[in-house]
Amino acid sequence: MDRHRYSQGVLQYIPLFYVIWSDDLLSISEINVVQSAIDKDSSLHQEDRALLGSWLDTQKPPQNSEMKYWKHLISNSQVKLLESALYPLSTFSQKMVCQYEKECPFNDQLKHIEIHLGIQPNHYNHLFEVEIEHASTSNYYSPKEIDALLKGKQAKVIDAFRKLMSDPIFDWGLHREKAEFRELVLQQVRYLGEKGYGAMAYPRAYGGTGNMEAYAGIFENLMYVDASLTIKFGVQFGLFGGSIQKLGTKKHHDQYLMAAGKAELLGCFAMTETRHGSNVRGIKTTATYDPKTDTLIVHTPGKDNNKEYIGNALHAKIATVFAQLIVNGENNGVHAILVPLRNEKHVLLPGISIEDNGYKLGLNGVDNGKIWFNQVAVARQNLLNKYGDIQDDGTYHSDIKDPNKRFFTMLGTLVGGRICVARASLGGAKMALAIAIKYALKRRQFNDTIKIQEDLLMDYPTHQLRLTPLVASAYVYHVTLENLMARYCDESQPDKRKVETQVAGLKSIITWYANSAIQECREACGGKGYLIENRIADLKGDVDIFTTFEGDNNVLLQLAAKGVLSDFKAEFNSTGFSSVLKILGIQINDKLTTINPVYANKVDKDHLYNPKFHKHAFNYRTRRLTYTLAMRIRDYIKKGVPAYQAFLKVQTHLLALGKAYSAELAYATYCDFAEAVPDEKNRLLFQKLGTLHALHAIREDASWYLEQGYLGGTKSKAIRQRVERLCTELRPHIGVLVDGFGIPEHCMTAPITK
Amino acid sequence: MDRHRYSQGVLQYIPLFYVIWSDDLLSISEINVVQSAIDKDSSLHQEDRALLGSWLDTQKPPQNSEMKYWKHLISNSQVKLLESALYPLSTFSQKMVCQYEKECPFNDQLKHIEIHLGIQPNHYNHLFEVEIEHASTSNYYSPKEIDALLKGKQAKVIDAFRKLMSDPIFDWGLHREKAEFRELVLQQVRYLGEKGYGAMAYPRAYGGTGNMEAYAGIFENLMYVDASLTIKFGVQFGLFGGSIQKLGTKKHHDQYLMAAGKAELLGCFAMTETRHGSNVRGIKTTATYDPKTDTLIVHTPGKDNNKEYIGNALHAKIATVFAQLIVNGENNGVHAILVPLRNEKHVLLPGISIEDNGYKLGLNGVDNGKIWFNQVAVARQNLLNKYGDIQDDGTYHSDIKDPNKRFFTMLGTLVGGRICVARASLGGAKMALAIAIKYALKRRQFNDTIKIQEDLLMDYPTHQLRLTPLVASAYVYHVTLENLMARYCDESQPDKRKVETQVAGLKSIITWYANSAIQECREACGGKGYLIENRIADLKGDVDIFTTFEGDNNVLLQLAAKGVLSDFKAEFNSTGFSSVLKILGIQINDKLTTINPVYANKVDKDHLYNPKFHKHAFNYRTRRLTYTLAMRIRDYIKKGVPAYQAFLKVQTHLLALGKAYSAELAYATYCDFAEAVPDEKNRLLFQKLGTLHALHAIREDASWYLEQGYLGGTKSKAIRQRVERLCTELRPHIGVLVDGFGIPEHCMTAPITK
Repeated sequence: MDRHRYSQGVLQYIPLFYVIWSDDLLSISEINVVQSAIDKDSSLHQEDRALLGSWLDTQKPPQNSEMKYWKHLISNSQVKLLESALYPLSTFSQKMVCQYEKECPFNDQLKHIEIHLGIQPNHYNHLFEVEIEHASTSNYYSPKEIDALLKGKQAKVIDAFRKLMSDPIFDWGLHREKAEFRELVLQQVRYLGEKGYGAMAYPRAYGGTGNMEAYAGIFENLMYVDASLTIKFGVQFGLFGGSIQKLGTKKHHDQYLMAAGKAELLGCFAMTETRHGSNVRGIKTTATYDPKTDTLIVHTPGKDNNKEYIGNALHAKIATVFAQLIVNGENNGVHAILVPLRNEKHVLLPGISIEDNGYKLGLNGVDNGKIWFNQVAVARQNLLNKYGDIQDDGTYHSDIKDPNKRFFTMLGTLVGGRICVARASLGGAKMALAIAIKYALKRRQFNDTIKIQEDLLMDYPTHQLRLTPLVASAYVYHVTLENLMARYCDESQPDKRKVETQVAGLKSIITWYANSAIQECREACGGKGYLIENRIADLKGDVDIFTTFEGDNNVLLQLAAKGVLSDFKAEFNSTGFSSVLKILGIQINDKLTTINPVYANKVDKDHLYNPKFHKHAFNYRTRRLTYTLAMRIRDYIKKGVPAYQAFLKVQTHLLALGKAYSAELAYATYCDFAEAVPDEKNRLLFQKLGTLHALHAIREDASWYLEQGYLGGTKSKAIRQRVERLCTELRPHIGVLVDGFGIPEHCMTAPITK
Repeated sequence: MDRHRYSQGVLQYIPLFYVIWSDDLLSISEINVVQSAIDKDSSLHQEDRALLGSWLDTQKPPQNSEMKYWKHLISNSQVKLLESALYPLSTFSQKMVCQYEKECPFNDQLKHIEIHLGIQPNHYNHLFEVEIEHASTSNYYSPKEIDALLKGKQAKVIDAFRKLMSDPIFDWGLHREKAEFRELVLQQVRYLGEKGYGAMAYPRAYGGTGNMEAYAGIFENLMYVDASLTIKFGVQFGLFGGSIQKLGTKKHHDQYLMAAGKAELLGCFAMTETRHGSNVRGIKTTATYDPKTDTLIVHTPGKDNNKEYIGNALHAKIATVFAQLIVNGENNGVHAILVPLRNEKHVLLPGISIEDNGYKLGLNGVDNGKIWFNQVAVARQNLLNKYGDIQDDGTYHSDIKDPNKRFFTMLGTLVGGRICVARASLGGAKMALAIAIKYALKRRQFNDTIKIQEDLLMDYPTHQLRLTPLVASAYVYHVTLENLMARYCDESQPDKRKVETQVAGLKSIITWYANSAIQECREACGGKGYLIENRIADLKGDVDIFTTFEGDNNVLLQLAAKGVLSDFKAEFNSTGFSSVLKILGIQINDKLTTINPVYANKVDKDHLYNPKFHKHAFNYRTRRLTYTLAMRIRDYIKKGVPAYQAFLKVQTHLLALGKAYSAELAYATYCDFAEAVPDEKNRLLFQKLGTLHALHAIREDASWYLEQGYLGGTKSKAIRQRVERLCTELRPHIGVLVDGFGIPEHCMTAPITK
């Protein structure tokens, strides 16, 4: 046996020192952890402490020859590394000492360092060149506990629903032919209606539970079955039924809501027109009141002014049609009218024309179609009249006098659907991530010359880096959307404008996130990800359109940014806008100067992992973008540029602000949640996920932070390294983290996950 | 008529001054252009010059009240703005003066400024609030001239081929059912074989023209018909036929090449295995020489060691099978063997099993399948024996002794296919861009309150910013790939290692670029982009896998980076690696210190638009990443970390270097091309596209440049503004730029382009 040059005390620290010096990532606070453990370690002599202490000087790191000798000691120890041991490094060190010395007690100070530095076998297993008993995934955390935290108070409903999802009607299958696919999805929707899930968000009087929050959870879970089902479900119960619930009055509820919730009455939501998707206010369809017959004449004025992309168009008996309401020659703006489309034999009624929209990139189980109306008369009572009505005397009346405000009030009632779309996209991302990670924990490729077995994909640093931050973000967005829906449903807060602004922004960033995540998963699975049987391909095609429907992301972000600007303006309304900007200029500049060079280059772990830093960074970006945006607009307007044009000129700036605001909001929401997790173990895990998400997001905008001087070059690099390091630290738990999404086993059909 | 406070001389400059001050983007060199024009303008009096000069001080810009008055003069002039005028601003100014004064000659100095500042109607048409005669696209440039420049010396072949593409067999249609789709694609491939296009790259003796460069052009153009056709064409003629041509010898050429080129003999290229896609060297299929029967026994050892994803697997009669060649018990590494799969009645031969890979996200017209071999004997002569042979005495012989080198030599012959894949992805991007831009030049949405007509999508700054840099990059990558193929085919340069490194990198960045471009186009077309009839959806599904096949991008980038590292090492081989790093450290640090603060914050237009700056930035990034990478690896190795593990630890760094190297190469190649464009008009256009591409690319990596101190915050912001400005400047020509791709009208079937 190799005789060594160190005392037993020093020897037990050799594996640790080899690990920490093989990468040069030691920060001051980490050195302090090691130093104080050494100071407290009673098994060490004074000269041991001196020697170990001398190896902690970042200015004068250990010699390479010294390190090679450490390596030699480790590799020749013939100790097996057990990754599944509770403290693998301390255990390894203990056994190594046993090889050379008679006594070899377990060292608690080493254990302390191992825990507090977060050193894990995958940091060093490749360095030691000893026999290794791998643990491809750790069972330190429990997927059930994580899932329970995510489900929150909706756990009971969600659990029951997941059980229902195992019904054979939801079995996954391949569907190329749209007619057959649509028929199946229709049956599934009817089944869910029968089981009471369609009416979930409706009042109890109409078969529901009034639980919109649970409805959103259900909606996300449907993605694990199929996205076409999710969307058709949303069209029937959320958009069609929801429009009756939210825009109609008791007579409509009594007549339609029960049947809608059971999917006995199939309906569609006919808002979008061929040339008017985002610009709903500009739609061309008219509904003209005819006092003689006491009817509304619904009409499509031009060949290209048809309703388009209307889900359920081929199956529906009736539609909620959005049209310009004209009474006594006066246009009262966009209103919703119930227009029957087909008779009980499913034959189109006179004046109605419907065409199939044909095949799409995805969602081919949804029957989207185009609808034309040729002077179709419906009873005046078909007007969904909660916010505007035609009275018995044939005059128009609304409690909301401002047509602009009336329009946004009506649209605002439908914002819940936007949250659901974001939830569904998140469900798609979770599904793709679970598949890609389960595959990466099985599939091996390449190896070094010594080993027989090839390496797991999940053990490649690039693979960790491409997938782990996406998993962390899924947690953050899940919590954010749960919270957003709770606030949307909170009846003690009737003014929903703020929530609407937030929904607009979050729907955008989350649907984009979902698309990138699914794309990354497709590529991470290579050719296998391209096969339909492995599910990611369909998710990709399906979720793609989520960035466009229920509000195009680029349009919504501008809406969100304008909301932020209004708040900004409102904050100082009393003192007047422009004078206030000057004051604020000083305040923000002051804030900027507090970003002194020390802060801008603070790279200590404690600082970089501190949510206060992340929150400050997100908030700084939002405030700064708001301020500069307001200044730019003001300058344009001062020079005589019309407001509409001024807003056009700052369009890219608006998008940046919309994103920044949403990012800040998501993280702040998540932090509150994570802090409140009752048990420490899971709380630390959730906080670590938040840290990874935040640092990754700050890195994405690093160029901006660097331009502003908020980040110095050193700090920006340190953040990049920390992101990589966190991905490595989470590597043993990545399998549990995707299991924590709670995707039912019976939905996990992809052969590559088996 | 409003009486004004200015002389006639000053009055004629008012529209110009209003335009340049409404945005504050004037750089020193631009002010100089205006100043010197004013100095030379003989129509001005001394006091006019003084007044105009006083409005050129960026430290003391004109008062807002002054500007509002300018605006008032313009808006009340009742002059119509004709966007299609040769010099719209000078013409407008002249007419405005005519409204107020008797004499109003055209001012040549104004015209000079208008040209040299690149001021275009879309910079100011929204500011003037006068009647405007819009020109949605300019005809200043000619699509035909641009197309001719792109086609270069292959023009004749490409033109003939584009004509052939109008044959009804290539008509676009919807294909959901794979059997029917594959049958059609097979007929198309046969038709192309009959017409001589399959053999194009083969020698004349075998029905070809030996023109691989034209073949690549054809390959790209096939994307305008359908990507499944492109890929099936590539499998049959490029991979299968190409493997015989490149790896076989005369006996194989004589026996197979003519029939392969005519698609009379259908074959496949069986390399990839289920668990070995990227790691080809580790494939499990064996070909064992049996001296008794003088045959090779081809065998799949385990159930999961089958060939997978093999194109043409369902139609082929024969396959080029890659297997470990075992002779006398010794493994000589991977070799290619021709193995018949089916008899003339299309029945599988004994020992062969083939399964359909099923439906994929895209390319469903290609029959990918899995193949198993159960002790299949083929004649020894079926070994494609150019680089290694079994001699008559039953011993193995190769002129290339090093098995590693032999393997890479064989694979290297197939690198041409990788260039073709990049070309095809580029074709997909061009097609999507052409569709999205044609749509954006027709579709209108939203408007301000004054106008009746809504605005064109293409006139939104965000729309310009999302699409224009992608168009510029399409030009850059087209030129790069043409050049790369020319060098690959250049027989005077037999050592292809450098080209192979370059292909690996460029294939990666270009296929990724193509995917992002297509995605952006899908979103830019909203819901219309999601409909199959509009073509973008299929392109998205089809091109997706290009990032994976013919080499996974992440693996290829590491290959490219290692190539760069080897060159780097070779440069200094005589003095030894590590001592040289020290010298180089000094050199690079010196280089770094030459990035003084003045350079890092130089924001003048002349500097930012100078290709020297762009080249310097790209080169700086490559060199710096190479150096730091080499240092990191050296440090790991010095500490005793095994080389394989050291490379794993720097994996993300390798990817960054691979990308940086490719970006540098693409731009340098393009600059040489653009400089050599003979006529000035088109040369300036090509150079402007290059500038937009380069500045956009530098912006993408801005965080890195800022971290390094190469860019200061001011310069980074200035680059962002320049990118937006260039997009605006190119707006009138964007229609011509996509027409310049030369996509045949008969392929442009998307209804939204009509």
